Amino acid sequence: MKRYVIAADLGGTNIKIALVKDENRIVKKSNLSTRAYKGKTSLISALSNACLEIMKEAGLRKQDILGIGIGAPGLIDSKRGIIHQLVNIKGFKEVPLKDLVEKTTGMSVFIDNDVNVMTLGELHHGAGRGAKNMVCITLGTGVGGGIVIDGRLYRGSTLSAGEIGHMPLNEKGPNCNCGGFGCMEKYVGNKYIVEVAIRKIKEGKKTAVTGLVNGDLKKITPEIISMAEKKGDRLAASVWEEIGGHLGVTVAGVINLLNPERIIVGGGIADAGKILFEAIRKTVKQRAMRLPADCAKIVKAKLGQDAGLIGAAVLVRLKGK
Amino acid sequence: MKRYVIAADLGGTNIKIALVKDENRIVKKSNLSTRAYKGKTSLISALSNACLEIMKEAGLRKQDILGIGIGAPGLIDSKRGIIHQLVNIKGFKEVPLKDLVEKTTGMSVFIDNDVNVMTLGELHHGAGRGAKNMVCITLGTGVGGGIVIDGRLYRGSTLSAGEIGHMPLNEKGPNCNCGGFGCMEKYVGNKYIVEVAIRKIKEGKKTAVTGLVNGDLKKITPEIISMAEKKGDRLAASVWEEIGGHLGVTVAGVINLLNPERIIVGGGIADAGKILFEAIRKTVKQRAMRLPADCAKIVKAKLGQDAGLIGAAVLVRLKGK
Repeated sequence: MKRYVIAADLGGTNIKIALVKDENRIVKKSNLSTRAYKGKTSLISALSNACLEIMKEAGLRKQDILGIGIGAPGLIDSKRGIIHQLVNIKGFKEVPLKDLVEKTTGMSVFIDNDVNVMTLGELHHGAGRGAKNMVCITLGTGVGGGIVIDGRLYRGSTLSAGEIGHMPLNEKGPNCNCGGFGCMEKYVGNKYIVEVAIRKIKEGKKTAVTGLVNGDLKKITPEIISMAEKKGDRLAASVWEEIGGHLGVTVAGVINLLNPERIIVGGGIADAGKILFEAIRKTVKQRAMRLPADCAKIVKAKLGQDAGLIGAAVLVRLKGK
Repeated sequence: MKRYVIAADLGGTNIKIALVKDENRIVKKSNLSTRAYKGKTSLISALSNACLEIMKEAGLRKQDILGIGIGAPGLIDSKRGIIHQLVNIKGFKEVPLKDLVEKTTGMSVFIDNDVNVMTLGELHHGAGRGAKNMVCITLGTGVGGGIVIDGRLYRGSTLSAGEIGHMPLNEKGPNCNCGGFGCMEKYVGNKYIVEVAIRKIKEGKKTAVTGLVNGDLKKITPEIISMAEKKGDRLAASVWEEIGGHLGVTVAGVINLLNPERIIVGGGIADAGKILFEAIRKTVKQRAMRLPADCAKIVKAKLGQDAGLIGAAVLVRLKGK
């Protein structure tokens, strides 16, 4: 049995590559800087070479490798292995990444959307273990979602399911990049979190946040707000309560609609921790129907930064399914 | 092969019973008045007898019948055949309906929520034929939903999935019977439709609706609004535009989340017709993401009043799955 998979996690800043053993043990890692490559051709060839290299460095040969799994942010046809387009990485339009990397490396390649890949990781080796029906939410600049139905990733009729960040939170609301408006992402995305903090600061409330950025409010990030909150800062706490409240409304709707047994929340701001989760749970308790609300455990993602790599390894074992 | 199924559709007013041939041909119908029976025991025994009678009247015997399928409005454990509780029919709390009817009739019985049953009917013999992933919405006093994933009814982890009427439409909104608030049902349920019409009439707009109820605004129903709209009444049309707009927001969210290829809208007010559907589609076009929106056909249910009976026949063939 082939026990190794090469996993890659394409991001706007870095491309992480790992050799994964037995699906959940990362034995070796390497890194490429996404922006070092001008154009998709050079990026794809660098990615392919890095895959071959990490294998050789570990003293392995192609016949030891089950395949290569790649997660990338954007619209991806996981069935045909084509990237329709990527977010934050330019020049990728209708790129048959699977075929291209297979040709250069001589190994089987499977690709999918980064949130789907993370969901697979959490499902098989993280906070989703044992769940039949679950929804995974990733918080960051944007808000993504992955759906598991009956133990399998659900991708939808044109493979674009899971866009929980673009479910309307209100009938009226701010314009969103997706073309719609009032999308949940516009209330809980990183930029909005910072805006909430700034609004509260301008209302004159005292906070340690101002000191942490030396008075330059433009330097506030969700991480800094978390830092302040962990030191007991009341304003920072109220930011997370507000964000968790928004998130909870959408989560309540998804719970009523899908009756999942687990909701996993990951990504940068999930590190805000307890206070964020308490606010989500409180709102769900107020608004979701009792039977599905009692059934749905709302938990933090477990694999952190490695979710994409572990998930990519799972994707290979499942042959892209 | 057994070609007949006995189907029953329990409602707050009537219990419809039918003999269904080849899953989609209703060859005989009978009716019981729900309120004629005091208590569940007498109702269940009347239901069982009516099932045996319709079979005998058709000159059939038990060995000709594949089974009995029952749809009922409420919280139902379709796996164990237990009614947790019903809406609009009192006294049904934790009733093992499947076992009880099986004992009296000597035939296999399968039960499920009426919306799930209707969804099965539309999927196999109505507007959902050929769809892999779809969402069925029933409009009426309440708003129900049924979800089909990969060609099969999806019931969720505790069999309560599909409550699309109880997805929040706004963060702030009117209290709902479900315990939550701002639920979509509170914006498009029958009662609210009438309220919208009355509000518009009180604003002084001219309308044929007033004449149709002889000036008694309490007599307005969604049917009367539809009647007026079909005669070209502008106020009536604007009611449906408003309702369709509300519905469209939730539908846009569901399309972004689930990427289904079909959305079926049925129930009383779906008869409002074109103008309602146009308003739903317009809102979806404005708010849903392009790829999933282009994929999702929004269509009217096809089986009308018979959806529950045809669906109950499908439920039996699928052995309750």
